[in-house]
Amino acid sequence: MRGLFITIEGPDGAGKSTQIELLKEYFKNKGKEIVITREPGGTLISEKIRDIILDNENKEMADTTEALLYAASRAQHVAEKILPALKKGQVVICDRFVHSSLIYQGMARGLGIDEVKAINDFAIMGLMPNITFFFDISPEISLKRKDEMGKKDRLENENIDFHKKVYEGYKKLIEKYPDEFSVIDARKSKEEIHEDIISRLPINTRKANNL
Amino acid sequence: MRGLFITIEGPDGAGKSTQIELLKEYFKNKGKEIVITREPGGTLISEKIRDIILDNENKEMADTTEALLYAASRAQHVAEKILPALKKGQVVICDRFVHSSLIYQGMARGLGIDEVKAINDFAIMGLMPNITFFFDISPEISLKRKDEMGKKDRLENENIDFHKKVYEGYKKLIEKYPDEFSVIDARKSKEEIHEDIISRLPINTRKANNL
Repeated sequence: MRGLFITIEGPDGAGKSTQIELLKEYFKNKGKEIVITREPGGTLISEKIRDIILDNENKEMADTTEALLYAASRAQHVAEKILPALKKGQVVICDRFVHSSLIYQGMARGLGIDEVKAINDFAIMGLMPNITFFFDISPEISLKRKDEMGKKDRLENENIDFHKKVYEGYKKLIEKYPDEFSVIDARKSKEEIHEDIISRLPINTRKANNL
Repeated sequence: MRGLFITIEGPDGAGKSTQIELLKEYFKNKGKEIVITREPGGTLISEKIRDIILDNENKEMADTTEALLYAASRAQHVAEKILPALKKGQVVICDRFVHSSLIYQGMARGLGIDEVKAINDFAIMGLMPNITFFFDISPEISLKRKDEMGKKDRLENENIDFHKKVYEGYKKLIEKYPDEFSVIDARKSKEEIHEDIISRLPINTRKANNL
């Protein structure tokens, strides 16, 4: 595997999209080929699965179904898009990955971290990110930002308690696996956040030997 | 749990639908409430997942994705339809269930029985059938019957080798777990098959204490 696999985690409204754009420019200027993608989604089949997950009409969806659909979407994403790009030496930046499922389905929905990890291990067949940035911002601030942005999907329509559980879930997961996360203070300005990210890239900290 | 949960396994073209109709009449005449359902599908959300699985357009689908989509469809089916019916004391007859995934994805696709069983255990949360009938018929005969019936979906379009693997898979699974299957000779006439099934129902063999 010659590429670099970066994932971005954190609540919606934390500024992930803005930073992904800045990171894209950064790598472009370095002459790297870059793939920007997102979960759930990223391929034609994954997007079809995403539509089922996020459709407000599907209120009857069981928590187990939701967890398995996220894993299915991820399996396709890895097989069809992420792995081939990494094999070609490209940089892949993915908005949400396995950690989101451990938080949203494992903790917030109460299905269990280990149980949700097991179905995701099946989905990703051993592929973990080189680095994962967690955008740290309180649910009160992130929800307020999302409100200002307009229309929300089935998961975003969950109440504030759900989003608090998600936030606390991330905190617990980071405590449990500190080596898997690089925590970013998402209340800073977009320029400061970008600088923080760049300074922690494996390519700059020499943690990666594959670039 | 007061109901009776019957699943039917075997290749398409084995005569499963015909026998399900006869069984439906049998239980109706006994005054039982009966739910006929199928996998993948059985609920609105499961049917949407089924559409993705069987769509001939989705040729890029990874084997892991396919296995997780079947499990997702099953999770919804169990939670929304099968469990509630069984709790009301109804008879549920399901065309295909977990065993199909162990065969099609675990064996024929080569993902491994144990691996596919793990994601399905997550999906069904402990619900196994009271009895599973396997309709035993060679792939040559079942494929010929399907050809005569017309249009085929993405899985049915697999070649004869795939269907042979499926058939051999069932045979191995039955050898491994003989207590989980009741094998029906599907070359017999429909009346004879119906008699075979009735004589083996837990309600008649006194294996079930819940009817």
